[in-house]
Amino acid sequence: MFSNPKVPTTTLLITCSISLSLFLFFFSPCLPNYTTYHHHYLYTSLSDNSSISNNLQVLTTRPHIAGSVQNADAASYVLSAFSSYSPYMNSHIVSYHVSLTYQSSRTLTLIRPPPNPPTYFNLTQENYSNNPYAHEVVPTFHAYAKSGTAVGRVVYANYGSVGDFETLRRMGVDVSGTVVLARYGKIYRGDIISNAYEEGALGVLLYTDRKDYGGPGGFPNDKWMPPSGVQVGTVYRGAGDPSTPGWASTDSSCERLSTDEIERGGEVPLIPSLPISADDGEFILRSMGGQVADDDWQGDSTAPVYRVGPGPGILNLTYNGNYVISKIENVIAVIEGVEEPDRFVILGNNRDAWTFGGVDPNSGTAVLLDVARRLGKLQKNGWRPRRTIMLCNWDAEEYGLIGSTEWVEENREMLASRAVAYLNIGTAVSGPGFHASTTPQLDGLLKQVAQQVQDPDNSSQTIYDSWSGSKGTPTFGRLGGGGSDYTAFVQHVGISTIDMSFGEGYPVYHSMYDDFTWMRKFGDPMFQRHVAAASIWGRVALRLADDELLPFNYMFYVNELQTSTKELEERISGKSVSLHPLYRSILELKKASIKIDKQKKVLEDRKGWASFRGRDPLKARALNDRLMMAERAFTDRDGLPGRPWYKHLIYGPSKYNDYGSNSFPGIDDAIEKAKTLNTMESWRLVQHEIWKASRSITHASLVLNGKLT
Amino acid sequence: MFSNPKVPTTTLLITCSISLSLFLFFFSPCLPNYTTYHHHYLYTSLSDNSSISNNLQVLTTRPHIAGSVQNADAASYVLSAFSSYSPYMNSHIVSYHVSLTYQSSRTLTLIRPPPNPPTYFNLTQENYSNNPYAHEVVPTFHAYAKSGTAVGRVVYANYGSVGDFETLRRMGVDVSGTVVLARYGKIYRGDIISNAYEEGALGVLLYTDRKDYGGPGGFPNDKWMPPSGVQVGTVYRGAGDPSTPGWASTDSSCERLSTDEIERGGEVPLIPSLPISADDGEFILRSMGGQVADDDWQGDSTAPVYRVGPGPGILNLTYNGNYVISKIENVIAVIEGVEEPDRFVILGNNRDAWTFGGVDPNSGTAVLLDVARRLGKLQKNGWRPRRTIMLCNWDAEEYGLIGSTEWVEENREMLASRAVAYLNIGTAVSGPGFHASTTPQLDGLLKQVAQQVQDPDNSSQTIYDSWSGSKGTPTFGRLGGGGSDYTAFVQHVGISTIDMSFGEGYPVYHSMYDDFTWMRKFGDPMFQRHVAAASIWGRVALRLADDELLPFNYMFYVNELQTSTKELEERISGKSVSLHPLYRSILELKKASIKIDKQKKVLEDRKGWASFRGRDPLKARALNDRLMMAERAFTDRDGLPGRPWYKHLIYGPSKYNDYGSNSFPGIDDAIEKAKTLNTMESWRLVQHEIWKASRSITHASLVLNGKLT
Repeated sequence: MFSNPKVPTTTLLITCSISLSLFLFFFSPCLPNYTTYHHHYLYTSLSDNSSISNNLQVLTTRPHIAGSVQNADAASYVLSAFSSYSPYMNSHIVSYHVSLTYQSSRTLTLIRPPPNPPTYFNLTQENYSNNPYAHEVVPTFHAYAKSGTAVGRVVYANYGSVGDFETLRRMGVDVSGTVVLARYGKIYRGDIISNAYEEGALGVLLYTDRKDYGGPGGFPNDKWMPPSGVQVGTVYRGAGDPSTPGWASTDSSCERLSTDEIERGGEVPLIPSLPISADDGEFILRSMGGQVADDDWQGDSTAPVYRVGPGPGILNLTYNGNYVISKIENVIAVIEGVEEPDRFVILGNNRDAWTFGGVDPNSGTAVLLDVARRLGKLQKNGWRPRRTIMLCNWDAEEYGLIGSTEWVEENREMLASRAVAYLNIGTAVSGPGFHASTTPQLDGLLKQVAQQVQDPDNSSQTIYDSWSGSKGTPTFGRLGGGGSDYTAFVQHVGISTIDMSFGEGYPVYHSMYDDFTWMRKFGDPMFQRHVAAASIWGRVALRLADDELLPFNYMFYVNELQTSTKELEERISGKSVSLHPLYRSILELKKASIKIDKQKKVLEDRKGWASFRGRDPLKARALNDRLMMAERAFTDRDGLPGRPWYKHLIYGPSKYNDYGSNSFPGIDDAIEKAKTLNTMESWRLVQHEIWKASRSITHASLVLNGKLT
Repeated sequence: MFSNPKVPTTTLLITCSISLSLFLFFFSPCLPNYTTYHHHYLYTSLSDNSSISNNLQVLTTRPHIAGSVQNADAASYVLSAFSSYSPYMNSHIVSYHVSLTYQSSRTLTLIRPPPNPPTYFNLTQENYSNNPYAHEVVPTFHAYAKSGTAVGRVVYANYGSVGDFETLRRMGVDVSGTVVLARYGKIYRGDIISNAYEEGALGVLLYTDRKDYGGPGGFPNDKWMPPSGVQVGTVYRGAGDPSTPGWASTDSSCERLSTDEIERGGEVPLIPSLPISADDGEFILRSMGGQVADDDWQGDSTAPVYRVGPGPGILNLTYNGNYVISKIENVIAVIEGVEEPDRFVILGNNRDAWTFGGVDPNSGTAVLLDVARRLGKLQKNGWRPRRTIMLCNWDAEEYGLIGSTEWVEENREMLASRAVAYLNIGTAVSGPGFHASTTPQLDGLLKQVAQQVQDPDNSSQTIYDSWSGSKGTPTFGRLGGGGSDYTAFVQHVGISTIDMSFGEGYPVYHSMYDDFTWMRKFGDPMFQRHVAAASIWGRVALRLADDELLPFNYMFYVNELQTSTKELEERISGKSVSLHPLYRSILELKKASIKIDKQKKVLEDRKGWASFRGRDPLKARALNDRLMMAERAFTDRDGLPGRPWYKHLIYGPSKYNDYGSNSFPGIDDAIEKAKTLNTMESWRLVQHEIWKASRSITHASLVLNGKLT
């Protein structure tokens, strides 16, 4: 109160009200209570499992492979759902014209020695559950398989890994000129074809072994793959439209490689292949002679004894497919940020499915729509995010991450300077149990959020508790593989990323039985896992969009890099190769990480007053930019040796290691190569890759420090 | 006034004063009057030609080649000068350990047919002006020349261009196995050696022809090169330390290529060479037989008739040099921005000189120090820039842009996201006449500033007037070549850049006579051109540092791209190559450019009020980021074919065209190659390069537009 006795109360009131108005005018935009909205996002009243279930049912009514009318219909559905949830959400479709392949004909015959008659396989999945749209499911095939005929004696190659082919060589089995039969389950199907090709095989069959995917009965009686079930999928080993490597397929008249040029690029197979069922695979195995395979190459107890061949049966495999320039559609909803519209938090999931997409990917699409629905509710209650949130529903992921990759390639420059984070959910739910892979600076945030969301399978604990399990600490995967739409974001541009799911693998994967019935009966009968997925995904996005200072912590990266470097030690022991540059650069990153954490605290502490001066928005922005851009510094503009599209030196697919590298793909490849060649020069190249990775870590520390030398 | 009669005057005063305080508190930081300071910068009272002259004299007292003690002393001088000009300027030295070469021995003998005795050249420049430190000038040599001996008949090759060697071939002169004598003056000396090597020559001599550099007498009597004057220089064709391609030579233990690996890289010559004087060159020419050279291959009227050889004389050339890891020092002064410390306006000039550096480069260093001095005065008067200004004095430019390139490579990630512009002055003054090369979005700003600075050679007009000349419009060069320290900024990272100078070429270039005496007598006796250079350089920097909205205009880029594309038309006529993608992308850039200009005006118009809300700093920042980052989008991360370090697709050195491409180096190279091969595939690669350049322009429009698809 003023102590001046001359001032009458009314004057004081006026003065106060002017002051108050001024106060509110200047201060209110600085003080939005984001926390309240974030709590609200998790309110039970906002959850709606029936809406998720309904969306999933609509989306999965008919099969919707990329490029089909059905998938265009699904795009319209997603677009209208986005629009219906909020008038403040701008949604639109971004189309690309990409090169997809569809089968036109395929046959498979097994010719056994007389008197056995030839066996003509019908290659058809049976419609056990009377799904009314089963006839719309495309015939089983491998996308981007080579067209042609392969005739040769059959050789059994277990899971088709480099190690498996080595075993065959040790057994004296010559794969050259044969047709390889391998089972799905350990490595990427495209790598199996490539490994077989390297050994001189003429064609490849991939079957589903009951040991990996079969149960006592099979869908619809249980969750397991039925005997005629076939896992289709792509055998392309790149990312994005193979006819536009590195650039966007913006329209049908853009620059495009010919099929010959695509084949010379080395990422599509050069021999034909087909996926087949457990029944068909077992039938062929029963016909085989030769040595008995090792124990770990055998099937389950009901299976016959597996022999490696060759033959005596001869397989005659024909596959014909066409490259077709097809229109694909990404559906994108944008909630523009109020303070920083030019900073993006991007959520992504794909829509296209090999068949119905009950699990893969439309459990994720249903969850994406639920995130949109809940954010729409927050918007109606006044929430406006600080930064821009984008909800992206990608197309043609199944063919090779095409919709997301083309979009990233088209918007590369802007994403590189503006994307705060990418949050991916391909398959949201295939069962219980939370799984996450991240770039490590987001580990802390994800843990925090997981502690705020209830475990859908045990209401007495949080997701964090079940995720941590008996170990008491959660397990994080990393993003070196090419499994989902995060690839272009992390590995091409260097954007901090999280990939999440409930459940890990499921038997009817990529078969006709991956439909709404399977989800309702086995995957998530109450749709509570879907609700939980929407909770954690949206809540992470809200934090990244609204926190004034980005919730990034590079100490997790430091620890991860240290662990990965230690793992290299054994592999280079005895060679004149030094990890010292790596250790030194990691130490620099550690110092930079500690420093920026301190600076963050200082800014947080004085936020109360200083932000009113109109300068702190830029101060916070500068600090956030350092946190955001440090991840970009792990990319090298020249990329991995021989694979220039892959720019990230910490996380990327390994060329020689089928099982995927945990980290340092360039070093990993160089070591594998040096182990084979064992020349001075090959080990010198290992050292060069170590230097390259070290320098990228040093770049990241400089960015975190924010000072030029 | 309030109308309430109850309110006494004192209360009103209190109320008003509270309001006023609040007003000043909130609004004052938003209203710095930068314009006043900018005017002040050009005040005559702030100019001081004697300070410039004095600095130049001190800096050029002794020869100071990169890596020498003298050049380290010069660095200390620059550092202390920076520090003395302002207590608010933080200056420091950034060292690198780079691979330089120094000569250890060289001999040249001409063996003519009997009875002529052999001629042993002494390869020494005479000290005509009794410069007391002439003995410290290093013996004439070519940096990074190949060590070894070449013995062969001499062939005269004019300026040593590809066209000149074609002429020799047409004349039936076989260059293989010979020692080539060529004259300096049309193309880069490193390219002459490379062209001669491609023709099979064993060694190369480069001489100074009187027609190009000689006058009636020569220094110190006139400005011309005296008869014994030799132009030394580097013959390295890359940028940055050749032993650390693409990364910074941060310390002596960083990763480094061996000399063998450097030579395999293709950027250092594989045959020995020496620079020689006009006297020595003419002596050899007089000895030559063979056909008489074309008229345009002849010397001036006093010269003998030039014949092309071969021989009959035999040249015996020996050069031995050593690679030495040498410490080089960039001196950097930082004036930290108040509003946007994380946005950089960078001024750069080099310090190292082949000899005394009177013109090249220390006229630029003296001007850089004058900019620092004047900015120091502004700081003392209260000026604080909005953005950070950095004054950089590079080392080892003469060897191959090494100091600037290593620094850019080390700070690449941060420069890529934060550098607003780079402003280069290598040689500031060699005579009258303003010259500038730019990335075109800065053309408009440079014109504006040139209209505000008085022409140093005619006080009745501005620099703009004399620069425009009789044409009435100024001529802009572009930055495709590798002539100075802008290369890494533009061509590697894609930073908007201006390069400026007064005068264009001068006869004693890179000789012992490029000293303070030459400058005082011939280059700029009154030092007014130096003053003008400091005025225009600093004023451009002030605008870029202080303008709330960056003074970039992409319409100049649009026009320039259109002109360059038109120039391609003739070169591809008759081939199945289309420029349509380029024209289309340029049209997109035009639309984006018009759009952002409109948005800029809207922001400028409402600056008065809206900026008080504390949100506009981020709005202005977002718009500025689009202007700043659009240039980056012209870079391709994979770079030019076969030359991945060169990332810029509009401006970069041409591989096949010795005279340098004006623009589109990738397209240019592909056309030159296709003209030689004339295969379908080679013309298809031309089309591919056209697509690549088009896509980079499309990326730039997307960034300017600021919207993701």
